[in-house]
Amino acid sequence: MLDSIPSFARLVAELSKLPGIGKKTAARLVFHLLRRPAAEVEALAAAIAEIKRNVRFCSCCFSLTEQDPCRLCVDPARDDRVLCVVEQPQDLIAIERSRSFRGRYHVLHGALSPLDGMGPEDLHLAELMTRLEGVEEVVVATNFSVEGEATALYLADQVKGRGIRVTRLAYGIPMGSDLEFVDEATVNRAVEGRREL
Amino acid sequence: MLDSIPSFARLVAELSKLPGIGKKTAARLVFHLLRRPAAEVEALAAAIAEIKRNVRFCSCCFSLTEQDPCRLCVDPARDDRVLCVVEQPQDLIAIERSRSFRGRYHVLHGALSPLDGMGPEDLHLAELMTRLEGVEEVVVATNFSVEGEATALYLADQVKGRGIRVTRLAYGIPMGSDLEFVDEATVNRAVEGRREL
Repeated sequence: MLDSIPSFARLVAELSKLPGIGKKTAARLVFHLLRRPAAEVEALAAAIAEIKRNVRFCSCCFSLTEQDPCRLCVDPARDDRVLCVVEQPQDLIAIERSRSFRGRYHVLHGALSPLDGMGPEDLHLAELMTRLEGVEEVVVATNFSVEGEATALYLADQVKGRGIRVTRLAYGIPMGSDLEFVDEATVNRAVEGRREL
Repeated sequence: MLDSIPSFARLVAELSKLPGIGKKTAARLVFHLLRRPAAEVEALAAAIAEIKRNVRFCSCCFSLTEQDPCRLCVDPARDDRVLCVVEQPQDLIAIERSRSFRGRYHVLHGALSPLDGMGPEDLHLAELMTRLEGVEEVVVATNFSVEGEATALYLADQVKGRGIRVTRLAYGIPMGSDLEFVDEATVNRAVEGRREL
């Protein structure tokens, strides 16, 4: 039946390539699109076609941008002496959303993971090293996973040799948590990292 | 931060309109697309743009098709004397997949649901009535929901007056089920509908 409507089969195949979308969800999405006005469907198609054309990686910090260098790299109000290193552009967005950091960023596009074949040469580490002139502190904000921790240690090792301070985001209990439901490892780190009131 | 990359924000907004896709999932999909080759992203955009242009509803049975009338309506091998009525094109696809039916179809595009404002005039019922010439049996395959059942009863009422047999798909235990996990209402119907071996 479906082979008589090739446009349908083709869109199901394309949508199924997206993460978390199987054949059934893809078919449901296609039926949804068929019920929507043509203008809305065209707008979605245009937005997808444009994303790769308009959005690129900043040649300085490797974050997402439509202008190069990106707005954060050229903003004169940001502090050049503090550089925050993250794994992915979405991590940078999370920190910007918190309004807690006013320095510059550097996006590695991954973390060290020998099992996945990710070595230092697969990350934007060489470019990071060329940006350390005048930097006084590198804030390592890689993820709190095994790979993120390994990357943090590797970075600390590389950067400290240059006499630059290397800091790591604090471990601890997430805001609004019920202590009884927080995992042991996190409580352990929170106790270790306790501070004077 | 995100307002400096409008293409990103626009695609997140468009994707969030799809059923089951919230802002976070949409952002995850956009990051995924940004990592894929341009050709793959263009293929997805083109497939979406084409779906509304190429796929239409058959003017005879109201199923999805790229040619009008659809392949099922013009296929000389199908039995004109049996007409199967379904709610949605995907129901037709499910029955075709089972290879258990060789007659013609009619897609209502909904079911009677007074609470949602769906009355007989909102379904393709008038068109169904014009197709009953020469039909000996109408198989009602609307869903087994309250709305689907109401539609089945309404249809039976309308069609029986013309001396045409009206049948309903059998209720019962789904293949491969563990009886202990089947809901009471289904077991009840399966006992009522038991057959000689």
